[in-house]
Amino acid sequence: MSYKKTKPLRALFIGFGHVGQQIAKILTRERDNFPGLASLDLKTIAIIGRSKGNLVNEKEGVDLRKALDEVEEMKTFSSSNPDRRDISALEAARSLDYDVLIELSNLSIENRGEPAISHIRSALERGRHAITANKGPVAFAYSELKGLAEKMETSLLYETTVMDGAPVFNMARCCLKGCTVKGIEGILNSTTNFVLSMMEEGQCMDDAVKEAQKIGIAEADPNYDLEGWDSSAKISILANALMGASISPIHVDRKGIAGLSTEDVEKTLNSGKRLKLICKAWLAGKDVRASVKLEEIPSRHHFNLVMGSGSVITIETDLMGPIVLTQQNPTLYDTAYGVLSDLMTLSSTMETGVQTDSINSLL
Amino acid sequence: MSYKKTKPLRALFIGFGHVGQQIAKILTRERDNFPGLASLDLKTIAIIGRSKGNLVNEKEGVDLRKALDEVEEMKTFSSSNPDRRDISALEAARSLDYDVLIELSNLSIENRGEPAISHIRSALERGRHAITANKGPVAFAYSELKGLAEKMETSLLYETTVMDGAPVFNMARCCLKGCTVKGIEGILNSTTNFVLSMMEEGQCMDDAVKEAQKIGIAEADPNYDLEGWDSSAKISILANALMGASISPIHVDRKGIAGLSTEDVEKTLNSGKRLKLICKAWLAGKDVRASVKLEEIPSRHHFNLVMGSGSVITIETDLMGPIVLTQQNPTLYDTAYGVLSDLMTLSSTMETGVQTDSINSLL
Repeated sequence: MSYKKTKPLRALFIGFGHVGQQIAKILTRERDNFPGLASLDLKTIAIIGRSKGNLVNEKEGVDLRKALDEVEEMKTFSSSNPDRRDISALEAARSLDYDVLIELSNLSIENRGEPAISHIRSALERGRHAITANKGPVAFAYSELKGLAEKMETSLLYETTVMDGAPVFNMARCCLKGCTVKGIEGILNSTTNFVLSMMEEGQCMDDAVKEAQKIGIAEADPNYDLEGWDSSAKISILANALMGASISPIHVDRKGIAGLSTEDVEKTLNSGKRLKLICKAWLAGKDVRASVKLEEIPSRHHFNLVMGSGSVITIETDLMGPIVLTQQNPTLYDTAYGVLSDLMTLSSTMETGVQTDSINSLL
Repeated sequence: MSYKKTKPLRALFIGFGHVGQQIAKILTRERDNFPGLASLDLKTIAIIGRSKGNLVNEKEGVDLRKALDEVEEMKTFSSSNPDRRDISALEAARSLDYDVLIELSNLSIENRGEPAISHIRSALERGRHAITANKGPVAFAYSELKGLAEKMETSLLYETTVMDGAPVFNMARCCLKGCTVKGIEGILNSTTNFVLSMMEEGQCMDDAVKEAQKIGIAEADPNYDLEGWDSSAKISILANALMGASISPIHVDRKGIAGLSTEDVEKTLNSGKRLKLICKAWLAGKDVRASVKLEEIPSRHHFNLVMGSGSVITIETDLMGPIVLTQQNPTLYDTAYGVLSDLMTLSSTMETGVQTDSINSLL
């Protein structure tokens, strides 16, 4: 691969939790392990860490390695860090000089994707790119934000929102050219799939959820997982981005796994099947419908093999037989990679001089 | 999706067998069924049909619908077709005025990928794009042809060569940015997989092969399939394109399924596993090695579920957990789509003004 050297991509991070720290780790301490990232020239001009404090240095860039060290040591940025600044996420989005806003805060169903939507709207309105790992903006405000990105000839990228870094949206954008997507089906929530796997081994749901939290795969609020909200957000994003729908999680016919007993799970297992929380989107006339529901999956079905925190998606198109993309044993690297791959997309776009609207036009 | 209207893409077809005819069918009679292809403006300036005769019309374009009708009716282009011309494939590649050469002839192991390599070399030397569904050129002359395409700032695309239209190379090019591929594994030959499935049902190999030929999935020479040559060609292409190798099918540690008895197949099945012909490429120090061999695949492995003419590939990278792409029940539409997706790539590249070397630099 050969890339032309250009100016660094100036990034504003909103949120510096597990994913942000993992990205920082890959881009600093572990950078030499990943030769494919050599061409990615990123300058972090600010990190809005909320409870951790905020760092801003528009001129020199924030020292990402130092920021990571501090958070690992003290769970907050050091009060003596010269880049500490009192600024809100929204102010940062509106006033700082960045090329790309990277939204890493958590999904809020209650607030219908806010305040992340406002951050991204601010970036796009200023003609800046936005990458979101937070599902809220693309689950609740896809049409508005996409339209804004197109109007401003800038990019809105969100690979991490479904199946971490596994190429779902990149694949749809680059690899299904000319195809019309007819239907989507998948297992998209790690926590519930992990919990169901544990329950098949005889654990009760509470213990399984605690285990999921312990290994760090549960969402901030596990009820989002258990009640199917996280799955609903993901199938909404897929329906919006791949099928031209305009739906949000509240439109999804949703039933999570809350209330399921270990006996129910074992009964299905004993019949040779497995209970899985299946997300679906399909065409109903000119409309797109979506659901999230438990289904009994037979043993010789790809979805049956997806255990623990794995994910899978089947995409049905008019020109090809169904293609199935499975992600096995994802870790924080996979999540971080989703954001990194979006950064690589922006970076190569800026280098090759492709108009950014050409990215949007293919989405 | 929105595309700018530009000049048509002028295509030279070499070969007009099942795949060529399927492409013609999709682009003419069935065109209205596939709205995603609306932006693809193709002008067929010549078809080299060999035994079917050749059609050339550089000015107006060949009437693709008429050509298809004639071949379906008479197995040859009509002698009264005004576009009939006496010209060889190589002459056509060297002298006609096209934008893209579409190589649809069959793989030749004996001739080490020729004459298809020469056709493609001629196109690239003239600064024209080339798309190949024939595995030969990219299995036997990848480095040379890729280097030539880069030098001439033109494109060599070959999505159909592995897993038909399922996005293997497009995915690697667009969706694994920044990742280094560490290993590849898959079931990539439809005929042997179909034959193994039939043998599990008690058929002998000869009958199973005849059945595969009857439904049109066997290669022209079934020995290419049974002796693992087709699989070796595919894993070579993958190793070359995704892992920077310079190998050809003759470097692959190859053992096909020839000689396997129905009893062997049934014995493995009775032990709860299935025999599958597995293609592999892996890093051995700085080298890339590849093999094609029968393996016993346990029941709860994704490869075990791939039956009949299906295919599967697992890609292992440094930044993500393994991702598995499965293709279910492919038909001639899938094969044709591989070529169409390459045409869409060229078409959108030409419209957005991306330099074609940017496609190559990402491959």
